[in-house]
Amino acid sequence: MNRETLVKNIKAKNSFLCIGLDTDINRIPAHLHKEKDPVFAFNKQIVDATIDYCIAYKPNLAFYEALGPKGLESLAKTMEYIPEEVFTIADAKRGDIGNTAALYAKTFYETYAFDSVTVAPYMGKDSVTPFLEYKDRWVILLALTSNSGSQDFQNLVLKETGDEVYKMVIKKSMTWADAKQLMYVVGATQASKLKEIRAIAPDHFLLIPGVGAQGGNLQQVVANGINSDCGLIVNSSRGIIYAGNDKDFAKAAKQAASKLQQEMRTYLDKI
Amino acid sequence: MNRETLVKNIKAKNSFLCIGLDTDINRIPAHLHKEKDPVFAFNKQIVDATIDYCIAYKPNLAFYEALGPKGLESLAKTMEYIPEEVFTIADAKRGDIGNTAALYAKTFYETYAFDSVTVAPYMGKDSVTPFLEYKDRWVILLALTSNSGSQDFQNLVLKETGDEVYKMVIKKSMTWADAKQLMYVVGATQASKLKEIRAIAPDHFLLIPGVGAQGGNLQQVVANGINSDCGLIVNSSRGIIYAGNDKDFAKAAKQAASKLQQEMRTYLDKI
Repeated sequence: MNRETLVKNIKAKNSFLCIGLDTDINRIPAHLHKEKDPVFAFNKQIVDATIDYCIAYKPNLAFYEALGPKGLESLAKTMEYIPEEVFTIADAKRGDIGNTAALYAKTFYETYAFDSVTVAPYMGKDSVTPFLEYKDRWVILLALTSNSGSQDFQNLVLKETGDEVYKMVIKKSMTWADAKQLMYVVGATQASKLKEIRAIAPDHFLLIPGVGAQGGNLQQVVANGINSDCGLIVNSSRGIIYAGNDKDFAKAAKQAASKLQQEMRTYLDKI
Repeated sequence: MNRETLVKNIKAKNSFLCIGLDTDINRIPAHLHKEKDPVFAFNKQIVDATIDYCIAYKPNLAFYEALGPKGLESLAKTMEYIPEEVFTIADAKRGDIGNTAALYAKTFYETYAFDSVTVAPYMGKDSVTPFLEYKDRWVILLALTSNSGSQDFQNLVLKETGDEVYKMVIKKSMTWADAKQLMYVVGATQASKLKEIRAIAPDHFLLIPGVGAQGGNLQQVVANGINSDCGLIVNSSRGIIYAGNDKDFAKAAKQAASKLQQEMRTYLDKI
């Protein structure tokens, strides 16, 4: 999906909500365990219930991989089910040398037909550029994450430039691709630093996880991060997909997604 | 596998060779494509031919994932086939927030029964510690990698301590686990920096990729990195598994592995 279509979708749906399909076989409602593929059955109902309120879905690969090969079957079926006009994010956080990165790009862009992949920056340019060879597919590079461990290395200050490591990741990677192919992960728990990131990267989309279960605040994120194209994709996983845990789980997910979308509409009305 | 067994295996086999099972469906000999599972058929013959000369196998997950769910079936069969007394490394370079990291640990240690996983440090402590909760399983943390992109972030100097980022990764992570559970990835192309790393982490095992196809030199690696327990696991992938490309490929792989093992024996004789 190209940037124009993504922005058009955000405006059409009055939403910049991404729903994280962190589908845990141990947390899905009991009645679904009778299905042949309980994970896919769950995802299908979540997609049906929420698609009017979100512009992206983000399966977290760990949840599928933990189930072995059959977990990847559930992922493949889920990806086939999600309509092409919805942006898809493989939350995989890959990062490896060039020939291996090229295979990961093939995996996510070709085998599973994702629009984008989250990528870890530690191994540098040649671990990222193979993903950029696909037209209208995106790299979402980890910059400043939402977890406590983000303090360990991302926030260390560099001698030469005085930048924190995460700022150097943004600055350097901006020379590898433009805002039509590159986004950054910035945790919602880091809202105060969003303003500084926007100063460095005014045009790039930012994928913001951590709203909800991890404690991030949507209003603060918007105040510091929105731009004229919206420029934000805000993810909620557990707060939506586990809003209910019985036969009405999809209805509960719909209500949770709708509530976030209504809040988002008020912010989008102002840009 | 615990450290004592790993060291015992190295001494018994006179080898610290790891063979990278970077099995590319497009590079395996044509006659294997008639098999039901060509990737597993290839791996099985490689293991049979090389097991006397190596102490570890390292499947690179990207090669299996690129084939979709059936690639993971080939991986599962390969892992079942490798005898328990050989150390196994999931070269997966994962790194995510705590609850996701816990699922990746489950995937590699339980679903596929690996002894160890390569982990990326960018997201910090809580992205690593869930892997350390498994007794006698290992984290192999990326420190200084073999690719050109290692210059982009790993080698930047920090203001507060004057350390390069990769040294801070080693120093900080040494407070999370000891040398019985934690190893580091140090590219063979970085042999000159191995001595500095050994000064910081005298006891830790180092996983050294990049010998062979990537240009690293074994003699230099040993000169700068060996310790009294050996402390090195040196990986070769393409140089061994693609030493031949016809019906005799396993024989060619055996010869390539044997040649490296013979060189390794001369180094081990001196410690």
